[in-house]
Amino acid sequence: MKLECAILGATGTVGQRFVQLLDGHPDFEPTVLAASERSAGKLYTEAVKWLLPCSVPSYAEKIGISGLDPAAIASSGARLAFSALPANVAGPVETELARRGVWVFSNAAAHRMDPHVPILVPEVNHPHLGIISGQRTPGKIVTNANCSTTGLVLGLGPLRRFGFDRVVVATYQAVSGAGYPGVASIDILGNVVPHIPREEEKMVAETRRILGSAKGGLIADHPAEVIASCARVPVDNGHLEAVAVGFPEAPDYDELLRAFAAYESPREVRGLCSAPDKPVVLTTAPDRPQPKRDAWLGGEGNRAGMAACVGRLQVSGGWAKFYLLSNNTVRGAAGGSILNAELALRNGSLGGRA
Amino acid sequence: MKLECAILGATGTVGQRFVQLLDGHPDFEPTVLAASERSAGKLYTEAVKWLLPCSVPSYAEKIGISGLDPAAIASSGARLAFSALPANVAGPVETELARRGVWVFSNAAAHRMDPHVPILVPEVNHPHLGIISGQRTPGKIVTNANCSTTGLVLGLGPLRRFGFDRVVVATYQAVSGAGYPGVASIDILGNVVPHIPREEEKMVAETRRILGSAKGGLIADHPAEVIASCARVPVDNGHLEAVAVGFPEAPDYDELLRAFAAYESPREVRGLCSAPDKPVVLTTAPDRPQPKRDAWLGGEGNRAGMAACVGRLQVSGGWAKFYLLSNNTVRGAAGGSILNAELALRNGSLGGRA
Amino acid sequence: MKLECAILGATGTVGQRFVQLLDGHPDFEPTVLAASERSAGKLYTEAVKWLLPCSVPSYAEKIGISGLDPAAIASSGARLAFSALPANVAGPVETELARRGVWVFSNAAAHRMDPHVPILVPEVNHPHLGIISGQRTPGKIVTNANCSTTGLVLGLGPLRRFGFDRVVVATYQAVSGAGYPGVASIDILGNVVPHIPREEEKMVAETRRILGSAKGGLIADHPAEVIASCARVPVDNGHLEAVAVGFPEAPDYDELLRAFAAYESPREVRGLCSAPDKPVVLTTAPDRPQPKRDAWLGGEGNRAGMAACVGRLQVSGGWAKFYLLSNNTVRGAAGGSILNAELALRNGSLGGRA
Amino acid sequence: MKLECAILGATGTVGQRFVQLLDGHPDFEPTVLAASERSAGKLYTEAVKWLLPCSVPSYAEKIGISGLDPAAIASSGARLAFSALPANVAGPVETELARRGVWVFSNAAAHRMDPHVPILVPEVNHPHLGIISGQRTPGKIVTNANCSTTGLVLGLGPLRRFGFDRVVVATYQAVSGAGYPGVASIDILGNVVPHIPREEEKMVAETRRILGSAKGGLIADHPAEVIASCARVPVDNGHLEAVAVGFPEAPDYDELLRAFAAYESPREVRGLCSAPDKPVVLTTAPDRPQPKRDAWLGGEGNRAGMAACVGRLQVSGGWAKFYLLSNNTVRGAAGGSILNAELALRNGSLGGRA
Repeated sequence: MKLECAILGATGTVGQRFVQLLDGHPDFEPTVLAASERSAGKLYTEAVKWLLPCSVPSYAEKIGISGLDPAAIASSGARLAFSALPANVAGPVETELARRGVWVFSNAAAHRMDPHVPILVPEVNHPHLGIISGQRTPGKIVTNANCSTTGLVLGLGPLRRFGFDRVVVATYQAVSGAGYPGVASIDILGNVVPHIPREEEKMVAETRRILGSAKGGLIADHPAEVIASCARVPVDNGHLEAVAVGFPEAPDYDELLRAFAAYESPREVRGLCSAPDKPVVLTTAPDRPQPKRDAWLGGEGNRAGMAACVGRLQVSGGWAKFYLLSNNTVRGAAGGSILNAELALRNGSLGGRA
Repeated sequence: MKLECAILGATGTVGQRFVQLLDGHPDFEPTVLAASERSAGKLYTEAVKWLLPCSVPSYAEKIGISGLDPAAIASSGARLAFSALPANVAGPVETELARRGVWVFSNAAAHRMDPHVPILVPEVNHPHLGIISGQRTPGKIVTNANCSTTGLVLGLGPLRRFGFDRVVVATYQAVSGAGYPGVASIDILGNVVPHIPREEEKMVAETRRILGSAKGGLIADHPAEVIASCARVPVDNGHLEAVAVGFPEAPDYDELLRAFAAYESPREVRGLCSAPDKPVVLTTAPDRPQPKRDAWLGGEGNRAGMAACVGRLQVSGGWAKFYLLSNNTVRGAAGGSILNAELALRNGSLGGRA
Repeated sequence: MKLECAILGATGTVGQRFVQLLDGHPDFEPTVLAASERSAGKLYTEAVKWLLPCSVPSYAEKIGISGLDPAAIASSGARLAFSALPANVAGPVETELARRGVWVFSNAAAHRMDPHVPILVPEVNHPHLGIISGQRTPGKIVTNANCSTTGLVLGLGPLRRFGFDRVVVATYQAVSGAGYPGVASIDILGNVVPHIPREEEKMVAETRRILGSAKGGLIADHPAEVIASCARVPVDNGHLEAVAVGFPEAPDYDELLRAFAAYESPREVRGLCSAPDKPVVLTTAPDRPQPKRDAWLGGEGNRAGMAACVGRLQVSGGWAKFYLLSNNTVRGAAGGSILNAELALRNGSLGGRA
Repeated sequence: MKLECAILGATGTVGQRFVQLLDGHPDFEPTVLAASERSAGKLYTEAVKWLLPCSVPSYAEKIGISGLDPAAIASSGARLAFSALPANVAGPVETELARRGVWVFSNAAAHRMDPHVPILVPEVNHPHLGIISGQRTPGKIVTNANCSTTGLVLGLGPLRRFGFDRVVVATYQAVSGAGYPGVASIDILGNVVPHIPREEEKMVAETRRILGSAKGGLIADHPAEVIASCARVPVDNGHLEAVAVGFPEAPDYDELLRAFAAYESPREVRGLCSAPDKPVVLTTAPDRPQPKRDAWLGGEGNRAGMAACVGRLQVSGGWAKFYLLSNNTVRGAAGGSILNAELALRNGSLGGRA
C-alpha cells in the first residue's frame, strides 16, 4: 500500500525532479500536483515547461494541477507533501498543511531554522529527525538542506571524528540551482558570477546545524568556523566545491583517505530506496570530480545522483583539502527530500498516523 | 632612444600578448621575434595563429621569425628579452642569454625559485629586484609570478600590514591560461576541471616568496600558511579567486575596506608606463568582480588589464574573505613582465649597461 | 550645434548601446533618457543594470529617467528620438512623437511595414529614405531592420547586380539579440535553440523590402524567394549566417569575389560618422568570420562593429554560398539607427526643420 | 552464438562508443581492441582516457590493447571489425583485413567512395548493401556516412517520393564530432567556427550517393543539387541542421507532415537490435529539436540516440524547410556501423561465411 502524496510547486525545476523521481516509487504515490493559481486547472503536461531530458512520466500526464490550498490538499487523501515551493510562498502553506495533519518534506528554506524542524541529511544526522516531536501539529515538517550545504556535509561526514574546527569552502554552482528561468544567459556565458543571494549565509548556518548534536529536543550547533564563498559557473548540473578543513592537530593523509573509503550509510539509513550504498564516492583520478562526468553517482534509477564524489584529497599542515561534487537537483533538492520521507516512514512516525 | 628587445616564444598565446602590448611602447622596441625551429624563417604573420581580437601590429608583420639561438639574439643588438617560452625550454635559453649580457624578463617558471632571481610583482615587492645583484652573469633574469599568484599577491598587498597568518584560496581560472590549443573543448564546455598541473604548488610557494622579505640578498618566505585549490572554468580570460585570509585577531571590516580603497602603487612604481594608478580596484557591487566584465581595469592602452579587482569583502570572526579577479594574459603574464622591465629600467640597472 | 535627442527605452540592452554610441557624437546630444514608469524619476545609473564592458558614459550619469510621455519629450527640446522600445510599446509612442514634430529613428519593428516608413540600411537602400515624404506628420519615422536582416542585406548588396532569385539563409544568433534577461541560461548552455519568435518572418519580409525599389513613394519588394531558418546559439554578440544565393545562371567565382572586395559605401553615405568605409569586409581565411573574433570590424570608435564580414565564399552550380557575420547590437540595432539619423541629417530633411 | 569482433581505434572517442554500445550486444562480442602502437600492450583501462559519462564496460577492462596488425586480427578469430580509425590510417588496414576475410564496418571515410563499397544508412538505402558483391575480397567493407550526412539522409528519407531537386543545408555541429582533443576550447567557447575540414564536400557527395540508386552493382547518384555549409558550435553532442528542400512543384504541407509522421523502418531493417522503430521522430513543439534535449531518441539501450528528430517543418513556395537533429557519436558514428553489421548478418552474407 503506497502513501498518497502531493508535490507542491510541481511545475518548477525542483518540482519536475520530484515528479520524475517519484515515478514508480515503492512507497509514495503522487496524486496531487499543486502549483500557483496561474497553472491550476490545466493538465500537468499543459502547465509545465518540462526541462528534463526524459519524458514526463505517464502517471503525471493525467493529473490536473491544483492550487496551493492546504485544506483541499489535506482532504484529498494525501498523507505527505513534497514541497518545492519558492521560499516566500512555502512558509504559511507548509505550516497549514502540518496543522491539518499532512507531513511536509520540504526543499524550501522557510522552516529550516525553526527550533523543532530538522535539516535532515540522513547519512550525516539521522538522529535529528527526533526533534520533530517538539512540533505541536499533527503533521510534521522536515526539511533538507540547501543544495550546496548538502554536498558539503556529506563530504565532512567521514571527517567528523577527527575533530575539525575550521571549514573554508568555495563553490562552483550549476545554473540549475537557480530554477527557471533563473540566471540570464548573457550573465553567465563565458563568465563566473561570484554571488548567489543568501547562499553563503545558509551554507554557514545549515552546516553548523546539521553537524550539531540533538540534545533535549533541540540542536546545538557544531562549533567549527565555516567560511563560505559561493559562485555560479556556466554548468548545467552538479555543484563543485573546493573544501579546506582545518584541524587542531595535523591530520594523517592515509587515515583520512581510509575514512573516506570506508564511509558508508549508517544502519538506520542503509537500504532505503533512495539511499546510496556509499554516500561519498572517493576518486583518486588526478582531475576529478567534474560536474559533467560525476554528477550521477550513487547507483541506478532513484539512487543515481544521490552520492557525492570527493577527489584530490591532500593534506598540508593542519589542513585537509579536497574537491567535492554533488548533484544539486537530485541529492541537493528533490532526492534529498524523498530520502528524508523514506527515513521517516521506516521510523514509523510517518506511516503510523493512519 | 628605445632599447631593442627580443620576444621569446613570440607565436604562442603569451608571446602574442607581448607582441601586442609592446606595440608603441615608449622604452622597448621588439626587433627579434624568436620561436621554435618549426617557425623560424617564416614571417611572423605566416607563423602565428593570431588569437587576439585585434590585428597583428604592423611592426610585427615585417619581422621574420628567428630560432631560439642565444648567441644570435645577443649579437642582434637586443638588450633585453621577454620570455614566453614553455617551462621545459626556458631554463637553458634564459641562462645562456643572461650569460651573454641580455636581460631576461621571463614569464616562465624555470628560474623562479633560483635564490638570486626575484619573482617580481612591483607594487607588492619592488625591493626584491635588488637580489639580482647576486646573479654572476652580465645580464640578469627577472621573473614574474604564475598568473594565479599574481592576482593573489596584489589582493593581499593591502592586507599585509594587518598581519595575516593563513590564506585559503580557490581559483576559477580561464582557459587562456593553458595556452593554445590548451584545454580540449569537450573537457571544459559546461564543466569545471578541478586540476591544473603544478598550479597549486606554484601558488603556495610563489605567494610566500613574493610576500617575503629581502635580507642579505636572499628572500625569506612569508610565514603564512597558504592553501590553494585550482580549477579551470569555461571562461576565456580573467582568473577569479575566492580568497579567505585568517588573522590572529579578528580584523575590523571598515579598516580593511579603507586599506583596499587607499591602496596605491608605491612611489618607486608609480608612473611606469604599464603601472596602473591603483593596482587593486575595489568594487562594492553585490555580484562583482566577474571575468567577462572586469578583466580590463587599470587604465587605457598598455594599462588596461593591469589592475586586479576585489569585491564582496566580508569579515567573519578571524577571517576576511573576498573575491579577486585579475587578467591572466596581461597582468598575470606579458604585462607583468613588461612592468618588471620598466622598473628595472627606471632603477638604472637595465639601461645602465650600455 | 548638436541636435538634442531622446533615447527611448534607454535602460534596456539596445538602449544602453544608444547611450554608449552617442557619447561624444558630433551631431546628436542625448538630453532625454526615457524608460518605463518603473524607472522614471531615478538617475540613469540607479535605474540601469549596465551590461556593457565599459563604464556608463559620464554625460548619462547625471540624467534623470523620464517616462515615455510624447508630449513631455516633444517639449523638451529634443528634435529626434532613438527608439529601443519593445515592439508592443513602440507603435503608439513613436506615432505620437512624429505627430508632435519629433523625428523617430527606431529599432522597433512596429512601423517597419508601414507603407511610407523606410527600413533603412543606408549602404544598401539609401534612396528609400525618400518615401518618408508620404508621412503626414511633421516628424518622420525611419526604422532600421531586424538585427539578422541587417547583416543579410549588407552581404547581398554586392551581389544585387548579378540578379539572384533565391536566398536561403540559416542563422546562428547571439543571445544579446534577445535583450535582458532574454534567454534562460539553462536553455542555451551547450545547446542550440532553433526558434526565435517571429524572426524568420521578419527576415523574409524585410529583406525583400530593403532590396526592393522605391517607386512613386512606395517600395516594390525584390522578387527573390527568401527562405530563412533562425536559431539561437551560446554566443554573446555577433550574428553569424550561412547564406546560399541562387542565380538563374551560374555565377563566376572570381567576379563575385571582386564584387565583394570592391564594395564600398555609396557617395551619399560615405563619410557619415558611423559609416564604415567598407560595409562588408571580405576575408579569405579558411575559418572566418567568427563571432568572437570578427564582430568589431568597420573602424575605430563609433564605426567599430558597423561593418559586416563575409568569408568562405564558394560557388557551386547556380549557387554562391558564404558565411556572414554582423554585430547585432551595434550594426543590427543602435548603430544602424544612428547611421540612419546621420543620413537624414545630411539630406537636410532632419536638420531643416529648425 | 555471438560473432567475435574487433574494434579498431578503440581508445578514441568513436572507439569508446563502439566499446560501450557493443556491451551486451546479442550478436557481436568484442574480443580484440586494437589501437596505435603507443597503446598496444596496455590494458584497455590503462590506455584509454574514457570520456563517456558511464563506466568502462567490465568486459573491456580485461582486454589488452593490440596493435593494428591485420594478420593478427584475422587470426584471432574475429569475423568482423568495427573501424573507428582516423582516415589516414584506415585505408590500408581495412583493405588488408578484408583481404584476409574479416568484414569491416567502418566509420572512416577512406573507402566510402570506392565503387563497390556502400555508404549504408539502412532505413534509407538498404538495397545498396548488394553492391558489396563487387568486392573481390573474402571479407567486405561496408561504411556508414559522415555524421552530418547520416542525419540529413534520414530526414530526407520521407521526402524522396515527392521528388526534390535541391537541398540547402547549414549545420550546427557538436564538438564531439571532432574527436579528442579536437577543437581547442579557446576557439569555440562563446563562438561558432564556420569551417570543418572537408565536411561540406563529404556531405554533398555522400548525400547524393546514399540517395542514389543501385543499378548493375554500382550506385548512380541522386540528381539533386546539394549545398552544404558546415559550422562547429559549442555543444557536446548532437548535430543540428537547418534544411531547406526545393521541389519542382510546390509541396503540400499536410502531405509532408503525414509523410514524416508515417515514416518507419522498412521491413528489411525493422527489428534489428539497433534499429529504432521510427528512424525519424517528428516534433511539433515550437522550439525543437535541440541538441541538449533531443539527442537520445530512438528507444532504450542500444537504440537510444539512433533516431533523428525533425521539427519546425514549414512550407514556403517550392520549398520545405525544417530543423533536424541527430546524435553524431551514436547514429552518426558507432551506432550506424553496428546497425550496418546487423543488417549484413540478417542478410546472411556476414554470418554465412563461417
